[in-house]
Amino acid sequence: MDFSSLMMSDELAHLSNRYDQFVKTHIIPLEQEAVYGSFKAALPKLQELRQLAKKEGLFAPHLSKSDGGLGLGLTEFGRVSEILGKSPLGHYIFNCQAPDIGNMELMHQFASPQLQSKYLVPLQKGEIRSCFAMTEPQHAGSNPKHLSTTAVKVGNEYIINGHKWFTSSADGAAFTIVMAVTDPEHPNPYQRASMILVPLDNLGFKLVRNIPIMGDVGEDYMSHAEVRFEDCKVPVSNLIGKEGSGFSLAQERLGPGRIHHCMRWIGICERAIDLMCQRALSRELDPGKPLSGQQTVQNWIAEAVAEVKAARMLVLATAFRIEKEGAKAAKMDISTIKFFVSDVLMKTLDKAIQTHGALGITDDTILSFWYRHERGARIYDGPDEVHKSVLARETLKKYAG
Amino acid sequence: MDFSSLMMSDELAHLSNRYDQFVKTHIIPLEQEAVYGSFKAALPKLQELRQLAKKEGLFAPHLSKSDGGLGLGLTEFGRVSEILGKSPLGHYIFNCQAPDIGNMELMHQFASPQLQSKYLVPLQKGEIRSCFAMTEPQHAGSNPKHLSTTAVKVGNEYIINGHKWFTSSADGAAFTIVMAVTDPEHPNPYQRASMILVPLDNLGFKLVRNIPIMGDVGEDYMSHAEVRFEDCKVPVSNLIGKEGSGFSLAQERLGPGRIHHCMRWIGICERAIDLMCQRALSRELDPGKPLSGQQTVQNWIAEAVAEVKAARMLVLATAFRIEKEGAKAAKMDISTIKFFVSDVLMKTLDKAIQTHGALGITDDTILSFWYRHERGARIYDGPDEVHKSVLARETLKKYAG
Amino acid sequence: MDFSSLMMSDELAHLSNRYDQFVKTHIIPLEQEAVYGSFKAALPKLQELRQLAKKEGLFAPHLSKSDGGLGLGLTEFGRVSEILGKSPLGHYIFNCQAPDIGNMELMHQFASPQLQSKYLVPLQKGEIRSCFAMTEPQHAGSNPKHLSTTAVKVGNEYIINGHKWFTSSADGAAFTIVMAVTDPEHPNPYQRASMILVPLDNLGFKLVRNIPIMGDVGEDYMSHAEVRFEDCKVPVSNLIGKEGSGFSLAQERLGPGRIHHCMRWIGICERAIDLMCQRALSRELDPGKPLSGQQTVQNWIAEAVAEVKAARMLVLATAFRIEKEGAKAAKMDISTIKFFVSDVLMKTLDKAIQTHGALGITDDTILSFWYRHERGARIYDGPDEVHKSVLARETLKKYAG
Amino acid sequence: MDFSSLMMSDELAHLSNRYDQFVKTHIIPLEQEAVYGSFKAALPKLQELRQLAKKEGLFAPHLSKSDGGLGLGLTEFGRVSEILGKSPLGHYIFNCQAPDIGNMELMHQFASPQLQSKYLVPLQKGEIRSCFAMTEPQHAGSNPKHLSTTAVKVGNEYIINGHKWFTSSADGAAFTIVMAVTDPEHPNPYQRASMILVPLDNLGFKLVRNIPIMGDVGEDYMSHAEVRFEDCKVPVSNLIGKEGSGFSLAQERLGPGRIHHCMRWIGICERAIDLMCQRALSRELDPGKPLSGQQTVQNWIAEAVAEVKAARMLVLATAFRIEKEGAKAAKMDISTIKFFVSDVLMKTLDKAIQTHGALGITDDTILSFWYRHERGARIYDGPDEVHKSVLARETLKKYAG
Repeated sequence: MDFSSLMMSDELAHLSNRYDQFVKTHIIPLEQEAVYGSFKAALPKLQELRQLAKKEGLFAPHLSKSDGGLGLGLTEFGRVSEILGKSPLGHYIFNCQAPDIGNMELMHQFASPQLQSKYLVPLQKGEIRSCFAMTEPQHAGSNPKHLSTTAVKVGNEYIINGHKWFTSSADGAAFTIVMAVTDPEHPNPYQRASMILVPLDNLGFKLVRNIPIMGDVGEDYMSHAEVRFEDCKVPVSNLIGKEGSGFSLAQERLGPGRIHHCMRWIGICERAIDLMCQRALSRELDPGKPLSGQQTVQNWIAEAVAEVKAARMLVLATAFRIEKEGAKAAKMDISTIKFFVSDVLMKTLDKAIQTHGALGITDDTILSFWYRHERGARIYDGPDEVHKSVLARETLKKYAG
Repeated sequence: MDFSSLMMSDELAHLSNRYDQFVKTHIIPLEQEAVYGSFKAALPKLQELRQLAKKEGLFAPHLSKSDGGLGLGLTEFGRVSEILGKSPLGHYIFNCQAPDIGNMELMHQFASPQLQSKYLVPLQKGEIRSCFAMTEPQHAGSNPKHLSTTAVKVGNEYIINGHKWFTSSADGAAFTIVMAVTDPEHPNPYQRASMILVPLDNLGFKLVRNIPIMGDVGEDYMSHAEVRFEDCKVPVSNLIGKEGSGFSLAQERLGPGRIHHCMRWIGICERAIDLMCQRALSRELDPGKPLSGQQTVQNWIAEAVAEVKAARMLVLATAFRIEKEGAKAAKMDISTIKFFVSDVLMKTLDKAIQTHGALGITDDTILSFWYRHERGARIYDGPDEVHKSVLARETLKKYAG
Repeated sequence: MDFSSLMMSDELAHLSNRYDQFVKTHIIPLEQEAVYGSFKAALPKLQELRQLAKKEGLFAPHLSKSDGGLGLGLTEFGRVSEILGKSPLGHYIFNCQAPDIGNMELMHQFASPQLQSKYLVPLQKGEIRSCFAMTEPQHAGSNPKHLSTTAVKVGNEYIINGHKWFTSSADGAAFTIVMAVTDPEHPNPYQRASMILVPLDNLGFKLVRNIPIMGDVGEDYMSHAEVRFEDCKVPVSNLIGKEGSGFSLAQERLGPGRIHHCMRWIGICERAIDLMCQRALSRELDPGKPLSGQQTVQNWIAEAVAEVKAARMLVLATAFRIEKEGAKAAKMDISTIKFFVSDVLMKTLDKAIQTHGALGITDDTILSFWYRHERGARIYDGPDEVHKSVLARETLKKYAG
Repeated sequence: MDFSSLMMSDELAHLSNRYDQFVKTHIIPLEQEAVYGSFKAALPKLQELRQLAKKEGLFAPHLSKSDGGLGLGLTEFGRVSEILGKSPLGHYIFNCQAPDIGNMELMHQFASPQLQSKYLVPLQKGEIRSCFAMTEPQHAGSNPKHLSTTAVKVGNEYIINGHKWFTSSADGAAFTIVMAVTDPEHPNPYQRASMILVPLDNLGFKLVRNIPIMGDVGEDYMSHAEVRFEDCKVPVSNLIGKEGSGFSLAQERLGPGRIHHCMRWIGICERAIDLMCQRALSRELDPGKPLSGQQTVQNWIAEAVAEVKAARMLVLATAFRIEKEGAKAAKMDISTIKFFVSDVLMKTLDKAIQTHGALGITDDTILSFWYRHERGARIYDGPDEVHKSVLARETLKKYAG
C-alpha cells in the first residue's frame, strides 16, 4: 500500500486487474499483426475485441453509465488508462483513444443536441471515428494569429478553405472538427477562430496524404493526415459552441487531452520496464551469468522505476486537481506533467532498447514502435520548451512584487 | 488543492504556517552568524530560540505529547520537516535534528528504562546532544564483515577498541552510540555486532579531530568527528537492544533516518527555488530586462519546480507507507527516494547557484553552504550506487521465475 | 585554420570540396526516392551516379590507385568519409560502404589470390556486393564461447550449419564471409573459429527474412538479414586466413570498421546541424521573430557544434594513430570514439528533430531515417557498455602496481 | 603517438616531463599546508620553490627568453600549463598564474615603457603580484553600459570612484588594473571605458574584504577581494593603452585568459582521474574485490577519460589558432572551450568525489578544493549561457542569407 493507493478503492483495484488481464490475454498477442502489420486488415479482429470488451462491461470506461460507459472519474480513469497504455492498441479497443476521446468530451459539453445525436452517439458506441484539424504546416501552433484556415459565412453555410496536417486518424474517420478563422478582424486574436464539424464525405475535403511518420505511412486509425479544405461548405449549425470560441474550446480540449497522453505514457513505461527486466533476466552473457547482474543494467532499472513512479504520482495528482477544481486551475500541473512525463517516457524507452541489444532496434519487440511514434510526445500538444516557459512564468508570478 | 494535500488537514496547514513564520522571522536571520560564523558563539541565541519554540508549543514536533512533543505522525512530520529544512538551523532549533532524532527513535524502542531516564529524557528535552559512531575510515560501510571496532565483554563491562569517523556532532555531545563487534565468530556476519551507549566523558574515548569537510572544520553540532575508542570501558547495561542485534537495529535506525534527510532536502530545494526566482526577478541584464526573461533561466526554474514536486510526492508516499506498514515494507521506497531526491537536490542547488552568477559562489547566500555540505547527500547513509542496486534487485525479483 | 587542418593539405581540401559538391548536387536530391522510397527501384539511378563518380575520378577513395581508387590514407579518407556521411547514400555511391569496405580490407590482406581475383576484384569495382555473417540471435556477440555456428571439414569441403542475424545487406549480395567454429575443443576459445567465404547462390544458404528494423524491412543494400546455413558446403579453399584465426581477423576487421562508422557519424551530425540552423532561421514564431532567437535553440546549436567538433578531433586523431601504429595500438582510442561519437550523434539528431517540431518526426526530412537507423550506433560493433569497460580497464592498468 | 602529439616535439616532451616531476616532488606535498592551511604562512616555502624553479630553468615558461622565461609558444605552453594545473599551487610557483599572467600579456603589449619598467619587470620576476578590477557587484559583467566605476580627468590625474568585487588576489598585490568609465557620453558604449593602473598603496583604494567563497575567506594570492575606489587619484600616465580602449583591451586580455583557465582545468581533470583510479584500485568492498571492478565506476572512468581527451584536443586546437591567427579569429573556438571544458571539469570532479565516498567530501584530498573553487569556472570570464549564445549566433551567420 502506498500513498497513491489512496485513490485506489478495492473496486477500482478489481476493475484494473480485469483490464490488465484483458490487455495481456487479448490485445498484446495482436500487436505484431495490427501494429507492425496492417491495421486495416486487422480491423475485423479488433472489432471482435471491442464486442468482447462490451460484453465484459469494460467498454468506454471514461463515459458515464448513461452514455454506455463505466462512469469513472478522471483519477480513476487514470489508473485504467495506464493499463490500456501498455499496448498501442489498448485505448482503441475500449474506445477511449485520442483524438476521439477529446472530441467526445468537447461535443458532450458544447455540441448542439442535433450534432450530438447524429455524431456523438455513434462515436461513443464506437460505430464511427473522428479527427481534429488544428495544426497547420506553415505556422507554429502556439500562435493564434498565425492560423490561416478560414470559414466564411455565406447564408446558412460556412465556406472553409485551408491546409492542415497532423489531422490524426483522418483516414477512415466519419467527421473532423476543424479550427478556422471566422472573424479575422476581431481585436482579440484569441476570439477570431471557431470550431466547426465537417463530415469527411464532404466534396470540399481532401485527404492529401497520410504523412509518413518515422518510417510509417500508417493507415486508418493509425495515421496522421495532411488535409485540405477547398471551398468546403457545411451548414452553420455545424458550429461547435459559439462563434469565436475556438481557442477557448481548444484549451478546454487540450488540457485534459494532455493528461490523457501522460496517463498512456505511464503505461508504455511500465511495459518497457517489464520488457527490460525480462530481457535482463533471460539474456546470458555467459552460461549462468545473466545481463541482470550487470551494474549498468541495474542502474537503468532503478532509475526507470524511480522516475516512472514519480511520473505516475504527478499525473494522478493532476487528474485529482482537474476533477476537483477544473482544468484551468490545473494549468501549471498540466504543463509540468507534459514535459516531465514525456522526458521520463523517452529515457525509459531508450534504456529498454539498450538492454535488448540488437533485438531492441528490430520490430520484434514493441519498443521500436514507441521509440519512433512517441518521439513526438515531446512535441505534440505543445513542445517541452513552451510548457517549461509557461510553468516558469507562472512560478515567477508568485515572487513578483 | 492537489493530491498531496490529502495528507494535509486544516490543522496541519495551520501548524505548518506557524513553523514557516518562525523559520523566516527568527531562524533565517541568524544564518550568517551561526552557519557561516561561529556556531559555538551563537549557542546562546540558538538556545533562546529553542525556549521560544517551547513557549509557542512548536518544540519537538516528532515526539509524542507525553514526551513533550506535538505527536505528529511521520507523514505529518514530513510536511513540517520540509519547512524546517529551509534553513540549516531549522531542525536544530526544534530538536529534531540528525543524529539526535535517530538516536531518540532508537532508544525509545530499544533502550532499557535506566538508559532512557538517564539519557533519552534529557536528549528529548534538548538539554544534551548525542552522536552515532558507525562508519570506519578503513572499510566500506555497506559490508558488515568489514567492521573492525570490537567490544569484548570482561566481567560486567565491555572493553571497546576501534577507530570511527563521520561521527557527526560528537564535538559537544554527551554520549554516542557505537557499533562494535561483540561476537566475531558468529556464522551470520549480520549478527556479529551490537550497539552500545558510551558517555563521551569516558577516558577511553578520544575525539581525534573534527574532520575538515568541504572547507569547514566545523564545531559543536555542526561538525563531523574522527574518534577513537581505546580500551574504553562501559557497563554491560549500556547495551542497546540485544547483543548481536547491531545490524538489525541499524536497519531500524537508518530507514527512517534516510527519509528524515529526504524531507529536509525538499526544504533546501524550496529555499533554492525561492532564491533563484528572487534573483531572476531582481537581477537586470539591461535596465528593465531582468534575468527572469531569459529562456535558459526559465527552463531551470521549470525543471526545478517539476522535479522538486515529484520528489516531495515520493517522500510523502514513503512516509505514508512507513507509518502504515513499517520501514521494512518500505525498503524499496526508501532506496528510491534516497537516490532520487539527493539527485534533485544537487541539480536544484546547481541551477540556483548558476542563476546567481558570481554571487552564487560566495558565502553571501546560503547556497554555498548546501552546495558543499550536501554533496555528501549522494554518499552518506548509502551511496546512490548501493540504493540503485537494491532497488533493481528487488524489482527483478518480481520477474524471476 | 585550426589544429585539425594540419591533416588537411590543399590538395585534400580541394578534393573534399569536390565530394561535397557531388553529394549536394547529385546524391541528396535522390534521398526521398532511394532512402524513403524503394532502394531497388532506384538502383538504375544509383548506378548512373556510380558511373559519374568513376568518370570524375572520385570512385573508391579508400582503395589504392592500382586497385582503381584514390589511394587516400585513413586520416585523409576520414575527411572524405565525413562528407559522404552527409547522406545515407554517400558511401554507397563511392563504393566505400559498410560492410563491403570491411570485407575489402580483410580480403586484401588475408584472402588467397584465387579468392581475390574471383571476389575481391569485382567487389572493388562495385560490380557485386557482399555481407558479413557473425552476430547470432541467441548469443551475446562479445563472447566467443557462445558462437554456435559450426564448420566441419569433410574431405575438401566445410559443411556449415548455423543461424545468424544482422547479416547486413545480404539481400542482393554475391557472397558472405561467415564466422564459424572449426575447432570447438581448442583450449583457447579465441582460436576456435574461422572465417569462410560463402557464395550466396549456395543451396545451403537461406535468407530467412530481412529483419524489420525500426519500421523498415528494407531491401537490397539497405537491409539487415536473418540467415541460416543448413549443411552449406563450400571448398576448403574458401577459408580466409588460417583456420582458427577467426577472432583475430575479426579484431582486424572491426577496429577499422568502427572508425569507419565514426567518420560517417560526423557527417550525419554536420547535416543535422545544417538542417537545425536552416530551420531555426526560417521558422517564425511571429512575423520577424525566427526560432533562432530562442535561447534554448541557441543552446542546442552551441552544444551540438562543440560536441561534434570534439568528436571529429577524436576521430581524426584515432585515424592518425591507426595509420602510424596500427589498429591494435589504437585499441583504447577506438573504444573511446565508439561510445563518445555515437552519443554525440544521437544527442545531435535529437536536438535537430526537436528544432523542427512536428516536421521533425515526419519522413519529409532525412532526420527520421537517422534517428531510427542510427539508434543502433550505440549497440552494433559492441555496445557502449562494453567499450566503456574496455577503456576503463586499460586505463586502470596504468595505475596498478 | 597520437594526433595531438604533432604539437609535441621531443624537446617539449622532455621539458613537460621535468615539470611533471617538479610538481609531484615539490609542489603536491605542500598542498595540505599551503592550500588547506595558511597560504601566507607557507609563503617562505613557496618562495623557495620559486627559486628552485628559476635555478632549474623552469620559471615563467610563458615569457620570452629576453624577459627571463622559456619562450614557449601558446600551444607549447598549453602542454606545460596542463601539468602545472595538477596542483592549485602549480602556476603560482612558476609565475604564470592568473590574474598576473593576463596582466603581463596586457602590459607587454599596451603599457608605456615607464609603466613596464616600474611594474611589469618586477611582476615578471615574481617580485610583486598584481590584480585586475573589472567586475562590479551591482551589474552583470557582460554589459558595458552597466559599468558604474568612473575616472574623471582633472589636470594630470584621474580621480577614480567605484565599487568592484572579484578583484582576485588583491590581498598582498602591489597594483591593480582597473576598468573605469572615462567618457560616459561616448555614443558607442564600448568606447566609454579605459584601463588604468592603480598602485594599491594609494590612499583612495580600500580593500573592503576578502569575499568568503565556498567556505574560504582566503588570503594573499588565494583570495577574491571586494574593493572600493574613493576619490582615488593616479597620474594620467597610468593609463594602459588609449583612453576609451578599455573594452577592446579587455577582449584582448580575456580571450587568452579564458584559454589559460581551460589549460589549467585539463590538469585538474588529469589529477582527478589519477585520484579516482588510485582510489578505485585500493578501496576494497570485500577482501580481494576492489571498487575498480564495479561497472559503474568503470563507466565513470571511461567517460572521464574520453571527455578529458576531447577537451584537451579542443584546447590545443584553439591555442594553435590563436598563435596562427590571433585571438579575434579564434573567438568561436574560445567560447566553445570555455563552456565545454568547464562542464567536463565539473563532471570529472564529481565522479572522482563519488568514487572516494565519504573521503571525497573531506579536505583530506585536494578534490574538495576544486569542487568548491572551480564551481566558478562555469561563471567567471562569462557564464556558460553567454558563451553558448555567442557560439550559436556566430554559427547561424553562416546559414543566413
